[in-house]
Amino acid sequence: MSSDCIFCKIINGEIPSSKILETSNVYAFMDISPLSVGHCLFVPKKHSITAHTTDDDTLSEILILMKKVAIAAGFETYNILQNNGEIAHQAVLHTHFHLIPKNSNDDGLIIDWRPKEVQDIETIRDKILNNLVL
Amino acid sequence: MSSDCIFCKIINGEIPSSKILETSNVYAFMDISPLSVGHCLFVPKKHSITAHTTDDDTLSEILILMKKVAIAAGFETYNILQNNGEIAHQAVLHTHFHLIPKNSNDDGLIIDWRPKEVQDIETIRDKILNNLVL
Repeated sequence: MSSDCIFCKIINGEIPSSKILETSNVYAFMDISPLSVGHCLFVPKKHSITAHTTDDDTLSEILILMKKVAIAAGFETYNILQNNGEIAHQAVLHTHFHLIPKNSNDDGLIIDWRPKEVQDIETIRDKILNNLVL
Repeated sequence: MSSDCIFCKIINGEIPSSKILETSNVYAFMDISPLSVGHCLFVPKKHSITAHTTDDDTLSEILILMKKVAIAAGFETYNILQNNGEIAHQAVLHTHFHLIPKNSNDDGLIIDWRPKEVQDIETIRDKILNNLVL
């Protein structure tokens, strides 16, 4: 736990939330500033800041729990989004996965998709493979 | 497998890809139209269209594999994104998770964050809970 983290305080009950579910690793609750009706958050109970510093047990649960909530909520069209770093739109520095229904073009997550001219994708891939430990 | 699905053809080797890794459930490869240098995709090998119709074994692996690649690639600031439905920006109708590095404001995923005035979040939560099976 991080003592000044708003999501840690929500998980510990110091700050109230509209809780959806809780397991030993994950806490899910409604976003209080939603992009659409039903927008909710899934967070590791153990404080981490980014996806790549979150423990594997937690990561292995999160998408399964998001699936269960998407089915329960009847979501058919929606985005799953997880942001790492303030430049990548992360607003709270505790790892969180957004489940954001999208039912019309001006509803939910608004994305501007701008592909780049990237040269030599094979070389970029090879650099990743040089360091990849499976 | 869906016979007219481009991602199924990539998984089966009918269409070449810059493959990063493959497990019994998941295939990962470089996006050929990247939003930033290192943008890659993680897809279930068994054809599904949405996250909520993807099997749990696959879902339990994906974030762990994305973490391994993010670490290998040295990504610190990045987005994980998964789109369901054309209205939610899904371009290929085979479930896929984007790992998109973001190193500057005009790089990677561009998000417009427009919170809504949503009334009665507790009632919305309660409707989800009425149908939630854990």
